[in-house]
Amino acid sequence: MSKRPLILITNDDGITAPGIRALIGAMNKIGEVVVVAPDRPQSAMGHAITINSTLHCTKIKLDKGPQKEFSCSGTPADCVKLAVNELLDRKPDICVSGINHGSNSSINVIYSGTMSAALEAGIQGIPAIGFSLLDYRWGANFEPLKPAVRSITENAIKNGIPQNVVLNVNLPKISSRKELNGIKVCRQARAHWIEKFDKRTNPMGKDYYWLTGEFINEDKGEDTDEFALGKNFISIVPVQYDLTAHHAIQELNTWNFE
Amino acid sequence: MSKRPLILITNDDGITAPGIRALIGAMNKIGEVVVVAPDRPQSAMGHAITINSTLHCTKIKLDKGPQKEFSCSGTPADCVKLAVNELLDRKPDICVSGINHGSNSSINVIYSGTMSAALEAGIQGIPAIGFSLLDYRWGANFEPLKPAVRSITENAIKNGIPQNVVLNVNLPKISSRKELNGIKVCRQARAHWIEKFDKRTNPMGKDYYWLTGEFINEDKGEDTDEFALGKNFISIVPVQYDLTAHHAIQELNTWNFE
Repeated sequence: MSKRPLILITNDDGITAPGIRALIGAMNKIGEVVVVAPDRPQSAMGHAITINSTLHCTKIKLDKGPQKEFSCSGTPADCVKLAVNELLDRKPDICVSGINHGSNSSINVIYSGTMSAALEAGIQGIPAIGFSLLDYRWGANFEPLKPAVRSITENAIKNGIPQNVVLNVNLPKISSRKELNGIKVCRQARAHWIEKFDKRTNPMGKDYYWLTGEFINEDKGEDTDEFALGKNFISIVPVQYDLTAHHAIQELNTWNFE
Repeated sequence: MSKRPLILITNDDGITAPGIRALIGAMNKIGEVVVVAPDRPQSAMGHAITINSTLHCTKIKLDKGPQKEFSCSGTPADCVKLAVNELLDRKPDICVSGINHGSNSSINVIYSGTMSAALEAGIQGIPAIGFSLLDYRWGANFEPLKPAVRSITENAIKNGIPQNVVLNVNLPKISSRKELNGIKVCRQARAHWIEKFDKRTNPMGKDYYWLTGEFINEDKGEDTDEFALGKNFISIVPVQYDLTAHHAIQELNTWNFE
């Protein structure tokens, strides 16, 4: 590629999060970087978009480096829409989202703002990858995973990503590169959360709840993201936004509507 | 079925919306109804959930009828989690979400709070259907579609819904039953929005944006939801929450990671 690729970066933890700063550092070595990210944490926002209120966007610069940065009042999906249709003067060659503080493996892909940003870019016809680290802490160690993040992104730029597909990349929590056993292409594990609501009473005597839960993986397959991550592999799950369950159409056609 | 089925109802337009009131009316004829719905509009919330703030829930009664009603501060997905894990004393036989004021056909399924509630119920192992009417107006006419909504729900209760699948049902805008041509099982059309941001300046001189857009359907297939709706059929798309693009795994395995 003669021209340096244009790389759009966003996330759901907000533009100040260490995870996006690590991603910016890795991407500055590959191409021309423009950051359009939420001005505050937007975790678990799913594919929310802002249709009933206004969007604000400010050009800022938080770190040294050649990247351009915009802080946006919207959701992760809003950031991608605004970047592609308003802020950028050409279509990005790739959109990378993250690095999320916390896992987006298995069913978590559904709730993830990080992955929704990547899906939104995919819908807009832009190759896209969401990166997430299995460490929720603000002080999570992204450093030993940067070479792999770069390698996956370079492969995506060089080979292209299959049409109508975006990549969900989860990174195991490691303290040095030696602990990483490799990269595996996987399917989404069939796992789910069992929610427990912590019921409390406020000082005015009114009940309220905190949502908590336990993650249950009942999928014993060795081709899943959960299995790979458990063995200190990076998992790559190709994700689609055509949600049609084609295999179910035949059965539904046997229903009898009066 | 000797016992009347327990039907959980939610939506994303809020508990006062005419669409959910129509759905309650239809479901009261089929089973025992419990409504757990957002206390305010939550359109385009996608699969957002509330993890960093508290949830409030109040037992209310807005309409006559045998249904129980709870108004909840959370998102549509929160409402389902709270209902199933905290408010209900047994697992619902089915969860119905809607009737949404506006289409959730094609790619709109991704942004839809209505469908996220249904997906959340599916993830919890409960048969689930999202209903949406192609009419955004508060005064939309749900009446001529009630018999079909009942028939689809009764089929789902009787036959079961294929495992790991929920139904996305879109209803054409009609003024009488005669205009309805039938019910079709479809796939999600490959369509997308072209966003246009309406840029304005506020009284303090700062720029802001409104997200607007145009819906583009480039899918000419006659087996899509868009095609069926255009011919005044009700569309039923089976939707899955395993997002793995299995067909893409082989191609990604040819990538070379340094």
